[in-house]
Amino acid sequence: MTPLLTDLYELTMAAGYFEAGLAFETAAFELSFRSLPRDRGFVLAAGLPQVIEFLLESRFEAADIEYLRSLPQFARVSAGFFDLLQSFRFEGDVRAVPEGTPLFAGEPALTVRGPLWQAQIAETFLLATIGFQTLIATKAARVVEAAGARAVVEFGTRRAQSPAAGVLAGRAAFIGGCAGTSNTLAGRLYGIPVYGTAAHSWVQAFPTELEAQRRLQQLLGPSTIYLIDTYDTLEGARKAASLGRPLWGVRLDSGDFVHLSREVRRILDDAGLSDAKIMASSDLDEHRITELVERGAPIDAFGVGTRLATSADAPTISAVYKLVEIGSGGRKRYSAKFSEGKISYPGAKQIFRQQDRDVIACAGEQLPGEPLLEEVVRGGQPARPLPDTRAARSHAGRSVAALPAAIRRLKEPEHRRVDHSEELERLLEAARREAKGAPA
Amino acid sequence: MTPLLTDLYELTMAAGYFEAGLAFETAAFELSFRSLPRDRGFVLAAGLPQVIEFLLESRFEAADIEYLRSLPQFARVSAGFFDLLQSFRFEGDVRAVPEGTPLFAGEPALTVRGPLWQAQIAETFLLATIGFQTLIATKAARVVEAAGARAVVEFGTRRAQSPAAGVLAGRAAFIGGCAGTSNTLAGRLYGIPVYGTAAHSWVQAFPTELEAQRRLQQLLGPSTIYLIDTYDTLEGARKAASLGRPLWGVRLDSGDFVHLSREVRRILDDAGLSDAKIMASSDLDEHRITELVERGAPIDAFGVGTRLATSADAPTISAVYKLVEIGSGGRKRYSAKFSEGKISYPGAKQIFRQQDRDVIACAGEQLPGEPLLEEVVRGGQPARPLPDTRAARSHAGRSVAALPAAIRRLKEPEHRRVDHSEELERLLEAARREAKGAPA
Repeated sequence: MTPLLTDLYELTMAAGYFEAGLAFETAAFELSFRSLPRDRGFVLAAGLPQVIEFLLESRFEAADIEYLRSLPQFARVSAGFFDLLQSFRFEGDVRAVPEGTPLFAGEPALTVRGPLWQAQIAETFLLATIGFQTLIATKAARVVEAAGARAVVEFGTRRAQSPAAGVLAGRAAFIGGCAGTSNTLAGRLYGIPVYGTAAHSWVQAFPTELEAQRRLQQLLGPSTIYLIDTYDTLEGARKAASLGRPLWGVRLDSGDFVHLSREVRRILDDAGLSDAKIMASSDLDEHRITELVERGAPIDAFGVGTRLATSADAPTISAVYKLVEIGSGGRKRYSAKFSEGKISYPGAKQIFRQQDRDVIACAGEQLPGEPLLEEVVRGGQPARPLPDTRAARSHAGRSVAALPAAIRRLKEPEHRRVDHSEELERLLEAARREAKGAPA
Repeated sequence: MTPLLTDLYELTMAAGYFEAGLAFETAAFELSFRSLPRDRGFVLAAGLPQVIEFLLESRFEAADIEYLRSLPQFARVSAGFFDLLQSFRFEGDVRAVPEGTPLFAGEPALTVRGPLWQAQIAETFLLATIGFQTLIATKAARVVEAAGARAVVEFGTRRAQSPAAGVLAGRAAFIGGCAGTSNTLAGRLYGIPVYGTAAHSWVQAFPTELEAQRRLQQLLGPSTIYLIDTYDTLEGARKAASLGRPLWGVRLDSGDFVHLSREVRRILDDAGLSDAKIMASSDLDEHRITELVERGAPIDAFGVGTRLATSADAPTISAVYKLVEIGSGGRKRYSAKFSEGKISYPGAKQIFRQQDRDVIACAGEQLPGEPLLEEVVRGGQPARPLPDTRAARSHAGRSVAALPAAIRRLKEPEHRRVDHSEELERLLEAARREAKGAPA
């Protein structure tokens, strides 16, 4: 991974800080979500290990530096800056909420403190990583909420926004509560359960559907799931039933799921296969699943692809990364932004989670409640082992279950109360006065 | 890149084909778009070089194979299959439309012909790659259409669905007509112009806004673009104007762009800087740009991020990859799918682009019009040099300009007439009869 995976202006700014003698000032940046995506009462923070890996392991290659030197924007930059890039190692600190923590609008998910230029150039990668995985973990939590006790498997890589996004979507969906993913690489990289049996092309590749099913059963034994809609769903179910055990069940992928699941259930039961399960997939999301559950469709598991892996109803999240402090000791300045509709609070912060509200406070404060941000990188070194993906999923599950139903609601959820500490409000006012009083 | 970046069922099917003696049957798969995303009258095909690179260069590592062996789904698979994976080299053929070619619903963007198991496991990567880049190139063409003669720069990596998606979004947006991208790595990898100067944090890092501007001008000279809304847009413009030349212009990033662009234009003109340009960014898309253009806002260039890099109004595309032929010579069977709402035509195909319609025909047919699919890989080797990204952008620009305005319309576009040749219709009927008559 190269730090060149960033917006060019991060690098021009880094060069400019270097020229202005500011590159090594200590700065703190904060990553937060300006607002929650539509119909979300919370988001589930995700993406931290990929951020830490990027910060601690990415290096500028010679070709990266040569490329920058070739750009007109770097024509006036002194050689010392390129030397700096060549020897780049991230030297700062990172504080973050654990993966799987529910967050609300305006709350910091992560703070980076370090040399200004280093903290600056990380912005783009951090936003895209935390933003996307948080988006998908949150969407997964919604789908899982709708499915109740039924398992949800993430199936979306083919429709993800790039193959690499599919791998991370599989990871984030698992944190959000999915039972697993169809993405094999996500399974290998993150230790996530992987699922998958056969597609329509499998059925088509054999002269008859029954032969395709027989071959599948030989291959997969008790993991066998027949996809039964290639030609005719009920015919497919009858053929599957005729093969008896071993099997896990059948998958519906088109048609009226309420009607078909009932008919297929009857076919399986009549064949003495009452333990065989029915899975449904194709164009599902939390609303469609809610409807199927409410209408009593006898479906045991859902495969959810496109709309989960892209969070299709709300495909973006307003993640922002803001400079909140610069300098240290007596020269420290607190930085905030007051432009229309884009106010940001100054200073590094802590979130205290109380029973019925969160309080965002200054980093040094001690308030009642559970502090959420913890140190994960110190001086460019890991400060603690991170929970693995399974632990993040458990944390998410417990944390979401502890939220009031009104906040978890899938449509028009209530908003949790989030206050700012008195000290933080005072800091905002001071920053505002300073900005207004600043000489032109 | 590892071929493990695929849905698990591609690999279980490959194993099953191997066990059933079908793995080396010649198969043809076709990638097409079942329907066009909302309000799109066409899509722009993109992503081909990444597909070819994956097919020709991806290899299973020992760790990949070890991982598969550890899965319950592979417990019954013979050792020969894992040997096959270890020696995997793609040996098939690929035919595709050139990048930047407008396509319509149901038209094949690409055909893979090769050993069944190899063509099968490529499915997931090909869909996610072609699907996503096509989605973004298409979105970019819409934004560029709205902007008319004004430049559009892609700014969306921070809000892309993963950092890697941001790199590919920069590429695809350029093919769709953007002037360049903020993504530095996309610039290096694909030879795309890169743009970027400074963010709000730059302004905040200096004691005064004027000092921040002066430093930027020293750094960037004639490439200087001041971001002027950190504290107060018009004040920011006055300070920028006071510094005179060299500069390229200023950027607005919040507030009422119609009002602010007029006021800022006046400030710049009054300072004798009538050649200084005004760029606008923040929450833009084709509809917002249309409105700004119609209201006569004096904006010279647009930076479009979130909604472009995610195609936020239509974040998914119904890309499908279907088995259309299997076997060869006298044993060749044509494969189609007739399940509810998901009909697919059998056989490898060619598209003939005529003046006022396209005709989808069987691969061997010769019809009037321009044939769109061309051979790009033959027997696992590149069959021709691919056009580079700039050539793809030119091809897209010419091709879109040649489409009727009614098809390019941004809302409720007309649909182009797409017919199927008589031979292809006969093949569909034959496949349907064969499927119906197939013994159970």
